[in-house]
Amino acid sequence: MAVQFPKHLKPIEPQGKALLQQERDKATFNSDSLKKYIYGNDYLEIRERILQILLADPLLSDKSHRYYNGRDIRFQKSLAAAKRLVELARIHKWNEEEVGMAEYLFDEPSAFRLHRSMFMPTIANQGTEEQKKLYLEPALKHEIIGCYAQTELGHGSNVRGLETTATYHLETQTFIINSPTLTSSKWWIGGLGVAANHAIVMARLITRGKDYGPHPFVVQIRNLENHEPLAGVVVGDIGPKFGFNTVDNGFILFDHMHVPHVALLARYSSVDKITGEYITPPNSKLAYGTMVYVRANIVLESRVVLARAATVAIRYSAVRSQGSDAANPKKLTNPDGTIKVVETPVLDYTMQQYRLFPIIAQAYACHFTGQEMHRMYHENQQKMSEGDFSYLADLHASSSGLKSLTTTLAVSAIEDCRRACGGHGYSLFSGLGQFYQDYLPKATWEGDNYLLTQQTTRYLLKTMRSVQSGKTKDKNATFSIEYISEYLANPQAKSHFTTVADLSNPEALLSAFKFRAAFLIEKAVYAIDIEQTSWNDMLVEIYRISRAHCQLVMVSNFLAAVFNNNKPVDATLCQALQRVAILFCLSTLEQETSDFLTSGYIVPAQALMIKQHFISVLKSIRPDVVALVDAFGFPDYLLNSALGENEGDVYEKMTAMAEKEPLNQSVVAEGYQNYIRPLIHGGKANWKFDNDGIARL
Amino acid sequence: MAVQFPKHLKPIEPQGKALLQQERDKATFNSDSLKKYIYGNDYLEIRERILQILLADPLLSDKSHRYYNGRDIRFQKSLAAAKRLVELARIHKWNEEEVGMAEYLFDEPSAFRLHRSMFMPTIANQGTEEQKKLYLEPALKHEIIGCYAQTELGHGSNVRGLETTATYHLETQTFIINSPTLTSSKWWIGGLGVAANHAIVMARLITRGKDYGPHPFVVQIRNLENHEPLAGVVVGDIGPKFGFNTVDNGFILFDHMHVPHVALLARYSSVDKITGEYITPPNSKLAYGTMVYVRANIVLESRVVLARAATVAIRYSAVRSQGSDAANPKKLTNPDGTIKVVETPVLDYTMQQYRLFPIIAQAYACHFTGQEMHRMYHENQQKMSEGDFSYLADLHASSSGLKSLTTTLAVSAIEDCRRACGGHGYSLFSGLGQFYQDYLPKATWEGDNYLLTQQTTRYLLKTMRSVQSGKTKDKNATFSIEYISEYLANPQAKSHFTTVADLSNPEALLSAFKFRAAFLIEKAVYAIDIEQTSWNDMLVEIYRISRAHCQLVMVSNFLAAVFNNNKPVDATLCQALQRVAILFCLSTLEQETSDFLTSGYIVPAQALMIKQHFISVLKSIRPDVVALVDAFGFPDYLLNSALGENEGDVYEKMTAMAEKEPLNQSVVAEGYQNYIRPLIHGGKANWKFDNDGIARL
Repeated sequence: MAVQFPKHLKPIEPQGKALLQQERDKATFNSDSLKKYIYGNDYLEIRERILQILLADPLLSDKSHRYYNGRDIRFQKSLAAAKRLVELARIHKWNEEEVGMAEYLFDEPSAFRLHRSMFMPTIANQGTEEQKKLYLEPALKHEIIGCYAQTELGHGSNVRGLETTATYHLETQTFIINSPTLTSSKWWIGGLGVAANHAIVMARLITRGKDYGPHPFVVQIRNLENHEPLAGVVVGDIGPKFGFNTVDNGFILFDHMHVPHVALLARYSSVDKITGEYITPPNSKLAYGTMVYVRANIVLESRVVLARAATVAIRYSAVRSQGSDAANPKKLTNPDGTIKVVETPVLDYTMQQYRLFPIIAQAYACHFTGQEMHRMYHENQQKMSEGDFSYLADLHASSSGLKSLTTTLAVSAIEDCRRACGGHGYSLFSGLGQFYQDYLPKATWEGDNYLLTQQTTRYLLKTMRSVQSGKTKDKNATFSIEYISEYLANPQAKSHFTTVADLSNPEALLSAFKFRAAFLIEKAVYAIDIEQTSWNDMLVEIYRISRAHCQLVMVSNFLAAVFNNNKPVDATLCQALQRVAILFCLSTLEQETSDFLTSGYIVPAQALMIKQHFISVLKSIRPDVVALVDAFGFPDYLLNSALGENEGDVYEKMTAMAEKEPLNQSVVAEGYQNYIRPLIHGGKANWKFDNDGIARL
Repeated sequence: MAVQFPKHLKPIEPQGKALLQQERDKATFNSDSLKKYIYGNDYLEIRERILQILLADPLLSDKSHRYYNGRDIRFQKSLAAAKRLVELARIHKWNEEEVGMAEYLFDEPSAFRLHRSMFMPTIANQGTEEQKKLYLEPALKHEIIGCYAQTELGHGSNVRGLETTATYHLETQTFIINSPTLTSSKWWIGGLGVAANHAIVMARLITRGKDYGPHPFVVQIRNLENHEPLAGVVVGDIGPKFGFNTVDNGFILFDHMHVPHVALLARYSSVDKITGEYITPPNSKLAYGTMVYVRANIVLESRVVLARAATVAIRYSAVRSQGSDAANPKKLTNPDGTIKVVETPVLDYTMQQYRLFPIIAQAYACHFTGQEMHRMYHENQQKMSEGDFSYLADLHASSSGLKSLTTTLAVSAIEDCRRACGGHGYSLFSGLGQFYQDYLPKATWEGDNYLLTQQTTRYLLKTMRSVQSGKTKDKNATFSIEYISEYLANPQAKSHFTTVADLSNPEALLSAFKFRAAFLIEKAVYAIDIEQTSWNDMLVEIYRISRAHCQLVMVSNFLAAVFNNNKPVDATLCQALQRVAILFCLSTLEQETSDFLTSGYIVPAQALMIKQHFISVLKSIRPDVVALVDAFGFPDYLLNSALGENEGDVYEKMTAMAEKEPLNQSVVAEGYQNYIRPLIHGGKANWKFDNDGIARL
């Protein structure tokens, strides 16, 4: 007999549903309008259409097993789902965007993920026409399944340290792929552990005795008939991880394995088949353009990660009532019209607002920044096609730092939101635990979040030197040049924060962020060029500079979007977003106060004013917070969270999910007979039992 | 056939073992001496003795299953281990400390944990002699197994909001335990889901129509003969959690269940059996003394949590080499005496030092603070026994904030260390993933880390008012009175940081922390008393004040221990610890710069000096970092980490652990036939195979 909750019991009044409705009624704007403004109708149409297909599919509609099962079962179920998604894509003739939407809504990384996101794009970008026919065509039909094998056991972020070699062997016209050491084992390769039969292997290309560094080779690794590893290959799964356990991250070692000449992806660089001569790639900056595109998407993804975490925590905080705020007690109207005092929703406590509201603001900041990155990407692609590369360096530098900053924000936000849910945040039913665990790697891949900042700052230091030396003629050529020039024109500038009203002035706020970033850059150039501080000793500062620059970019994009010409037409919407923008500026300012003080741009009295005023800015968006997360419109199917779903029936969901716990499928759980009874009945002689088994003591 | 790594391959040179040995050779002091200094010989003897018993036990010696299995298997294995630990305790006649050590080393929370840590102590402290005989004696023999049921589905931290009632029924001389709503279900109760047959239930005591608030009742919940729930009880497991999944956190609902009059733990308050009259407890402050003791232990536990996380990250960072620091390349002497340049261990990168070294310092700060708390606890107990309660309030207030601060630091440290291990930190083999997940609840239980700070700050505000108004006569009565008085005597004081040498002056550092804490307290009193700011609007500031006060306490304890009279005798040891103490002060100062600037105590130029000097302070302990973590002497058995174990054979461990992954027990993993083959062979007609299964493309 399974454990069941008594069906007649209801949660204490007021009910979550009523509380959420109160919040929705309070909002100053229409959250549906905001939803359309954020996503556009096309996106919403696709999301709804794909959602309905998934909900109707017996294999994909039920996510309930995810929280109860270990890796063994989850991995098998995930493989089954991945196969089903491939079939659905065929049936419905989904395009890239639709497949991506299905994966997003299904929300579980799978063994085939890297096949689609890395294996095929790499061949498409770096393969010749012959290679595309050979590898890409069967890959599109899933007749071969691939992965992307770069990272090694001993080398992650430093690609130049890779040990795997691919030595061209003239006699056989083959490359010999070899793993010379244990540390040269490819490691962390998604899809490799179980699923893939092909891999793009990054190996040091050696020909005619010379090492040309890492190059990509398409290597068949498993027998296509029976999936056994080919001769010379040792391959397997790297084992359990903190998250991502539905993916078979794998390892592979090669023992002098010969692969054909065609294996080297040869669109840019190649080896002459007959002579073995290395043919140098044309110097191309085009790849950097693509990186900007990928990173713009990561920023837009950060947006929905932040918003999703906030959705759960905000809705639950509207429902969860705890204690009473003496100065502002929560009152409820009884059906008979009388008023009674009830407990205060935790959303009314300033500390909770302080922890959560900035995350909502960050989500919107990422939204507007990601959109602007996309716009600039297209503008830059256009320029590059006309031979104008003047935007590229600035765009690429900012995109590196923004990837780092926004994914760092998103990682923190999930965990902060989980903790802000109190005890229940620790239940997997919150939906935030596995979400955190699966999202985390974003801070490491596509560029480690610390290393990336070196690219950003190196560019900014160069820009500072160029402006300082007068080499830069056009002071408005790029945003970086512009704000660095402004700073150099007046390095003793002071803030305009005289009254609290100034703290809501977009111009004044933007100026502060510009000054602070430029100040840090100037100080670093001085330390390196004049004081001869080593790059290594500057790493902490380098990280800070990238962060300061990217916070400025986000502030600038957000303010421009809601205060300038293209601001939303709907006035209530516009005003609400303006408050959120100001909140974003002030929460960032408050968090980074020491930089602003250290630069001399603000004085202690202003810092105190900011700190105090920030509390009232939190209050200014309090009526809108549920509507602000509602506007992201995450389907309950995606959230999979007892605490955060749309209806607010938190406690009914928690108990319903607890009923499904495998240990509850019998009122006396497995383990009792073997491990508990022997202890209790060890001194059995002492016990006498009533008829109903109650001990007489 | 299982997947196996080629046995002839070794990791790239230099080997981890050699790198760690270099680090150990570099240390300026003897890590064994430091180990004895930290723990004392008694502790080390017990640790070693218990360790050997566990290592020799077939059931307890192998922890390898922990990383591969889901909750189902882990829970059963954990129950088996818990039973075995009970047996070992009987066999070896372990005392409390020895049982605690075994649990610490085994390092996995179990279903019996709360029986020992909450059920029995509560009866011991709050039960009458009759109740101890009735409940405690069988509990000690594990004839009954108990848990502590306080938290409810709808109410966590706010005990006054509990809904469960215990109404005294004169006719039957029983209490009727009842759960009126779904939200009144007890929830999160460790040991309840599967194991316990008794519970201490916190329920609102109602007698003669009056509600006296929550009181503890000992309630039998399951049949002792067959473990079935008793009539009127619905009980089960609350389901999967982010961590702690070897514990059966449970829920329970009571439907008007009668329990005997003796169930109410009656040492302090009771109900007259005949009249039903409530007998008020004597006002006792003694319980606060116990809380100080519990919290001192939590601080000492934070110490080993911080140190353990740091041990893994520091050792791995000494082994993991990546890229090269151009200004300071790492050189290795070949066997033939020649020198070669190798990659730089990441421990040499300033950013890595910035991320990790402060954590080592925090571990030592917690060590000295925990020790001082123990000393003060005993001093206070002595005073209270003489009727002197003058220390209690100060001690209790600080202990609340210190619990909050040190567990918050420890939680962050595990995750920071995990991330500082790069990609491999994400593997469960790092030992840091499950460690983080299992340690996390410490930030919520024994007082939520945010709520607790209100206790600390409320006391500090009261102290400030008392000193300001002249009511406090003895300016040295407590540490808080002392530093608040110093501040009020000179609220315009400025720091003594003129040169970098001043930044290593213990007096100057201590003064800075005193000033900053007192400044924040004074500002808050002004805001509340004069500006009439509500308590709710002050919550963020209240949290900051508690943190500032407790950082000061830690700084003060650490500096006193290594600079004052009782400092270590061994000079090299003493100097090494002094550097660590300075690092602790400066890293805290650097992190909280904005407070120091805002208070006017330091000026921007000094903030810049601190920031720059901090980088050189990191370097000052660089030679000692491996020895500093070695001194904690964590057995490999405890660490269970491929990255952090003593020998440094990181890559051999990673591959050995990967071989045990269940998916690797066959070279073609489960799932291929059902989910991969059908896709690949969907278009089978296109394929032709070589003899060896290589596709002809």
